[in-house]
Amino acid sequence: MKAAVLDQNNFTQQIEALQTPEILPYHVLIKIKAASINHHELWSIKEQRKKSPDLIVMGSDGAGVVIGTGVHSNPELMGQEVIINPSLEWGSNPRTFGTDYHILGFPQQGTFAEYLSIHERYVVKKPGHLSFEEAAAIPLAGLTAYRALFTKGQIRKGNKVLITGIGGGAALLAMAFAIHAEAEVYVSSGNEDKLNTALTLGAKGGANYKTEGWAKKLLETSGGFDLIIDSASGPGFPELVSLANPGARIVLYGRTAGMIPTLDPQQIFLKQLSILGTSMGNEEEFEAMVKFVGLHQIKPVIDSSYPLAEIAQAFEKMKSGDQFGKIIINIPS
Amino acid sequence: MKAAVLDQNNFTQQIEALQTPEILPYHVLIKIKAASINHHELWSIKEQRKKSPDLIVMGSDGAGVVIGTGVHSNPELMGQEVIINPSLEWGSNPRTFGTDYHILGFPQQGTFAEYLSIHERYVVKKPGHLSFEEAAAIPLAGLTAYRALFTKGQIRKGNKVLITGIGGGAALLAMAFAIHAEAEVYVSSGNEDKLNTALTLGAKGGANYKTEGWAKKLLETSGGFDLIIDSASGPGFPELVSLANPGARIVLYGRTAGMIPTLDPQQIFLKQLSILGTSMGNEEEFEAMVKFVGLHQIKPVIDSSYPLAEIAQAFEKMKSGDQFGKIIINIPS
Repeated sequence: MKAAVLDQNNFTQQIEALQTPEILPYHVLIKIKAASINHHELWSIKEQRKKSPDLIVMGSDGAGVVIGTGVHSNPELMGQEVIINPSLEWGSNPRTFGTDYHILGFPQQGTFAEYLSIHERYVVKKPGHLSFEEAAAIPLAGLTAYRALFTKGQIRKGNKVLITGIGGGAALLAMAFAIHAEAEVYVSSGNEDKLNTALTLGAKGGANYKTEGWAKKLLETSGGFDLIIDSASGPGFPELVSLANPGARIVLYGRTAGMIPTLDPQQIFLKQLSILGTSMGNEEEFEAMVKFVGLHQIKPVIDSSYPLAEIAQAFEKMKSGDQFGKIIINIPS
Repeated sequence: MKAAVLDQNNFTQQIEALQTPEILPYHVLIKIKAASINHHELWSIKEQRKKSPDLIVMGSDGAGVVIGTGVHSNPELMGQEVIINPSLEWGSNPRTFGTDYHILGFPQQGTFAEYLSIHERYVVKKPGHLSFEEAAAIPLAGLTAYRALFTKGQIRKGNKVLITGIGGGAALLAMAFAIHAEAEVYVSSGNEDKLNTALTLGAKGGANYKTEGWAKKLLETSGGFDLIIDSASGPGFPELVSLANPGARIVLYGRTAGMIPTLDPQQIFLKQLSILGTSMGNEEEFEAMVKFVGLHQIKPVIDSSYPLAEIAQAFEKMKSGDQFGKIIINIPS
């Protein structure tokens, strides 16, 4: 089969011919129809200290068709169109993943390939309203957004919600989920075009964090926030603490802007704020997320699509930072 | 009646003769038997920008006997020995107090007086195993500790719990409550004597944060913490983030050590930590706390007692910072 293999010397992807994976017991073999790329892959490459002796096929997000079932697997999965849960071996504690936890794609072979063998518990039926491209845009970003908003953030109808860094995959799905949960959603970005597009997608307001006094202005127009979903951390984080209403939850899932500077503890305890770290989610959350997507016929925002042969260009596009929505990899039959 | 009145020029307390308060409808008149002092009073004095035209009688903590009931009050309260809930007008949102919220003692007349008239909903029957002195040591500290451990921290049997700044009233009651909730409790302090006393009271281990490498050593001996109750904030806070196990809760209710310096967001989201601000508690929590104290026959640690006439010395003692437990004010009959 064709697959994108990581060149461990140059940290680029190149297409090679690999053996189609064998189907282990309880596993299914999936013909991947589409994958999508994530910053997670860039970090994995960057943070990879020790080179692996094996060929590395990355890729956490994918959707496709089950074309084979292993010993003990449910035979009814054969032929099903599925979306893949990349959050593997979470463990029994809903608060946090255990020591066996890993994300599909590295070191376990991922979705940037024609075929993938995976335990049947990690496939969920693809909602009918989604194409394979759209389905492949959802797993990692949707799971992150769902746990952030629902499990951690305890979103309620009528909540005022701020989602930072709009344009990223998780932020855009968080916006869509929050709108369908009947919250009032505001967004922030350093890019006016992204803010304007978010308004056309249902955001009630937006703030450009590169303009002076943005937080004060946003506080005036919004009246403050009950729930903030932040992927940035960094120098703007104390502003989020100021924008939080009493009793608010600030859910943190990234650090694209770096370390969190000095915080005022009095604001945190007098406003009874909760600052909640989150990362990925468990199997129940993945299933609930896909169900929510199906129920509300939610479609992800797609920035662009590349064939597998051009995966290197897709990563270049992501590094540029100007995408709005997910970048898809189509895997030919 | 005799009362300690705040001298608004010198910010000291002086004993004066005031009129006994009238009993409003739904209120009860309490003969205060004992009160206790809190840092809250020092802050109220310090942060008081605008002088009040009235005589200010401070005091949040108190216990006594109901000697009068007002129109519409429950006549069965007459003669009851009670403990007073100082957390007034919390409002309907369990996450946070509303705009009418205030703490007994300022500006509303408090417990540093022979008599107090207060709405009957703020009196709870004193557990029988407590003297009036002991009962007066509990309200503010116990409410803070209870909400921090149970409502916010979701303490469970077997949890490893770290309580910082042992010696303070809330920290000591948090330790007692956590031990009775069958947690393994560790404590920290800058004072070896306080650490040793905490060990005799049931703490499993202690760390002196003034010694080099304390956090690393504590991590090794404890294996990390599921729940951390912190009153300090300040430069040691990032160490608490490092000491937290995956899925842990860090509950913050004070800032005796000042602002929180740079934090690593990756630790917060990869360990799925919750940093939870808390302050005081609502009526349900106060009742649950007093019930827990009665059920487990918990006694607060008392540092020293002063008669009302020597309240100024009691505050001097608190300012010295070397007390271990609560400082009591006895109110003569």
